[in-house]
Amino acid sequence: MSEKKVSAAVIRRLPRYFRYLGELLNQGIDRISSNELSERMGVTASQIRQDLNCFGGFGQQGFGYQVDFLYNEIGNILGVYNGYTVIIIGAGNLGRALANYRFFNREGYKIIGIFDNAQEVVGETIKDLTVLHVDALEQFMGQQQADIAILAIPRDTVPDIAEKLVKYGIKGLWNYSFAELSFDEPVAVENVHLSDSLMTLSYKVAQLEK
Amino acid sequence: MSEKKVSAAVIRRLPRYFRYLGELLNQGIDRISSNELSERMGVTASQIRQDLNCFGGFGQQGFGYQVDFLYNEIGNILGVYNGYTVIIIGAGNLGRALANYRFFNREGYKIIGIFDNAQEVVGETIKDLTVLHVDALEQFMGQQQADIAILAIPRDTVPDIAEKLVKYGIKGLWNYSFAELSFDEPVAVENVHLSDSLMTLSYKVAQLEK
Repeated sequence: MSEKKVSAAVIRRLPRYFRYLGELLNQGIDRISSNELSERMGVTASQIRQDLNCFGGFGQQGFGYQVDFLYNEIGNILGVYNGYTVIIIGAGNLGRALANYRFFNREGYKIIGIFDNAQEVVGETIKDLTVLHVDALEQFMGQQQADIAILAIPRDTVPDIAEKLVKYGIKGLWNYSFAELSFDEPVAVENVHLSDSLMTLSYKVAQLEK
Repeated sequence: MSEKKVSAAVIRRLPRYFRYLGELLNQGIDRISSNELSERMGVTASQIRQDLNCFGGFGQQGFGYQVDFLYNEIGNILGVYNGYTVIIIGAGNLGRALANYRFFNREGYKIIGIFDNAQEVVGETIKDLTVLHVDALEQFMGQQQADIAILAIPRDTVPDIAEKLVKYGIKGLWNYSFAELSFDEPVAVENVHLSDSLMTLSYKVAQLEK
């Protein structure tokens, strides 16, 4: 597998392929033609062929894609099976919702810590984990390797915590705040802007009304 | 304003422009060149010029974009100012997190109802709203116009509730479950797949390790 050749545009589409292929596996479907996959995903068959050609090895032409093979290949590229450990910063509603997000358990991500700065929350148990005070982060990170931190805290508290996390060796930040983050250190950042999706929805609703 | 000319690809980028322009307004910046905006957004200046040309009327060349004008134009197209009313189905952690999402209040969206099927939650107050039983949905929708419903409930309960909501006249569904929804009726659906963003992050983390 030569991952180096995969373009950024293809990478952006991979999580969607992974999702659809996972659905097919759940339904017990082990082969699918690019036309069928195209119809289900709303992407052209030629786009799919072009994207998936980056990975090679689908069996013979005319027999379609081997679903489990492709699913695993794409999962590998996305690092889904790398066993990344995750900590959640913020034990509010969003942090709790994410702690209970089934995707983590179904795939290879493992939540190993939940932190908050509110004394009334520290010590509480969420998903078998005792909520720790954020002041314990440095010690925690010295003892356990957390790869990814979920930032589920108010925007104004994000830059300070994020900087500390990077200093303590975090590799990826999954940022739910509107705070823009950038670092000199090599850290992966993925910002989630739920409002973008809401605005897309409201655009679609507005179009319906025309 | 002739919105009809705006392509689907441009529409997908609009929420991001709206966000960045909002940031600029917050910072008291009232004019920006396409080069500056390009640098901040990580999009080429020519892409920005091309996208924003769809809206016309930025003042003279060489003087950059007038931030508040563009912000309002884009907000209009996205339906942000249409005063859409929103109900939340599911008063669990995700539903509560979304009820407290500041974007709703800052922009023109108004949450007018929260529903759950658990008796221990019904009657509770969240953001000045009393949680109602989902069985009260039909009556509620007969009395008040809810435009958008947020589906913050488990996947297996989604299809049934979604079908009812459509029957009661909902126009848009913001779906946080993995359930795939499609309707014969004209309903706007926007699916949020947080896992796509997590996988993109884990891809970036995996790349760092190379």
